[in-house]
Amino acid sequence: MKESTDGIAKRKDDAANWFAGLRDQICNEFEALEDASRGPLSDRPPGRFERRIWERDEEKPNRAPSDGMTGGGEMSVMKGRVFEKVGVNISTVFGDLSPQYAKEIPGAETDHRFWASGISVVAHMQSPLVPAVHMNTRHIMTTKAWFGGGADLTPMIANDSDSNFFHSAFEKVCGKHEVADYERFKKWCDEYFYLKHRNEPRGIGGIFFDYLESSDWRADFAFTRDVGSVFLSTYSSLVRRNFDKGWTDAQRAQQLVKRGRYVEFNLLYDRGTRFGLMTGGNPEAVLMSLPPEVHWP
Amino acid sequence: MKESTDGIAKRKDDAANWFAGLRDQICNEFEALEDASRGPLSDRPPGRFERRIWERDEEKPNRAPSDGMTGGGEMSVMKGRVFEKVGVNISTVFGDLSPQYAKEIPGAETDHRFWASGISVVAHMQSPLVPAVHMNTRHIMTTKAWFGGGADLTPMIANDSDSNFFHSAFEKVCGKHEVADYERFKKWCDEYFYLKHRNEPRGIGGIFFDYLESSDWRADFAFTRDVGSVFLSTYSSLVRRNFDKGWTDAQRAQQLVKRGRYVEFNLLYDRGTRFGLMTGGNPEAVLMSLPPEVHWP
Repeated sequence: MKESTDGIAKRKDDAANWFAGLRDQICNEFEALEDASRGPLSDRPPGRFERRIWERDEEKPNRAPSDGMTGGGEMSVMKGRVFEKVGVNISTVFGDLSPQYAKEIPGAETDHRFWASGISVVAHMQSPLVPAVHMNTRHIMTTKAWFGGGADLTPMIANDSDSNFFHSAFEKVCGKHEVADYERFKKWCDEYFYLKHRNEPRGIGGIFFDYLESSDWRADFAFTRDVGSVFLSTYSSLVRRNFDKGWTDAQRAQQLVKRGRYVEFNLLYDRGTRFGLMTGGNPEAVLMSLPPEVHWP
Repeated sequence: MKESTDGIAKRKDDAANWFAGLRDQICNEFEALEDASRGPLSDRPPGRFERRIWERDEEKPNRAPSDGMTGGGEMSVMKGRVFEKVGVNISTVFGDLSPQYAKEIPGAETDHRFWASGISVVAHMQSPLVPAVHMNTRHIMTTKAWFGGGADLTPMIANDSDSNFFHSAFEKVCGKHEVADYERFKKWCDEYFYLKHRNEPRGIGGIFFDYLESSDWRADFAFTRDVGSVFLSTYSSLVRRNFDKGWTDAQRAQQLVKRGRYVEFNLLYDRGTRFGLMTGGNPEAVLMSLPPEVHWP
């Protein structure tokens, strides 16, 4: 569906504003979880997010000379007594893609103009009984316009009840949106978050979708918003279910090893991480996803 | 220089035997360092290497169906009071390369037969005042035959005296061999062990060489042997210089962060690591290089 320039500008604003508002909701709720904790580390002060704005147009060693992208983002990082390290990034970048990269992006093959806005969350928890989580949603515009994203859970110690709770929340939200296909998005997630070299999944999956461009922009955007909202309410419940339980040294040790798999996935396979690092993204923002403490015994 | 089949078989034997013998020398010397320690952790028992043989022809999820490679290796791992985690791997693999990968290997473009033997050492130390180190030497045969390898040092806390000592040892050994070009090998090392996304080197370098195939196989092999021997004597001296010194919590914290850079390099850039993992190598052997404890604060 063709849109006027005004219509497109409004869509960009609406999407970027949604991501910024969702960031605020997530940060507020995660700080509330810090306050509510009565778990093993509750003698420590509750964590608070610190925000840092970054601009993409600084000199970056990896940027292709022909890369005319600009924009920036805001990192929110909290190191707390429930969340050992959690990052919530929003960013909006735009400009002309380098001719080489433009070939790989739908709708940018001849017209290299590009706009992208999104939110990314990665949480590594103090307790090995609380799963780690990742969520990302984004809106991309070239001569095409689409949404992408998803959410996936990485329990440190298998727990069917938590896994089923997480899966059923996303099954339900997909069921409410005609543009969503739960079975396909779940399978996509399982295939994407897989460590081929170890023949094992990163976590228990969730949903993953990309190039979502039905004939109804409003419906695609509504689904994307709901993914973010359902992520927040579902994960918050999972934290509350588990965060007051005590854990053993052996469980902590298991968590630190499992985190190594997370690092391996992100540096070896994750498209966003590799793209960000190889094209002059802010390494601190891109690598915010890495766990605070990791063991390879 | 053409060699008879017998001559080639003997060269393979000589190279593989050298790597195995060097492995024994390294393990003996490193265990002697464990015994000699009077440093902060010397109330712990001295570490000892454990050896494990692995075979390449197990079922591996990442192996290309057309990959006809076989062989195997032996990992030696020690977790001690001086060496927090050190791995010494030897391996010999051979067979037919997959047609796709063969294109990238000199001399294998049409005849896909391949033979490779080598040794690889990575040491991560308890003390932040003792540098981490990496050494690898290898002999490859296709329709061509060459040596490659090198050694590089990663101090956790800058120390010019240690760095100069390491560099001068390799400058000296290169000076003794006509087939070696110290300036070129040093520059190659600096360029190879570089984290582009952070615009910083992994460590302080050393030497790196590949495709060493002069007209004199004996001379190339003699240089490769000397790289291993000089690595052992030089690094052993560096450990003895520093291993009895006490360290602070702040120095340990700096070490754990610096190790994160090591992980980033190995998973994002290292050709051997990526090749090993992507082609069905033993992940435990390939990832033995990862540090035992790492922080991304």
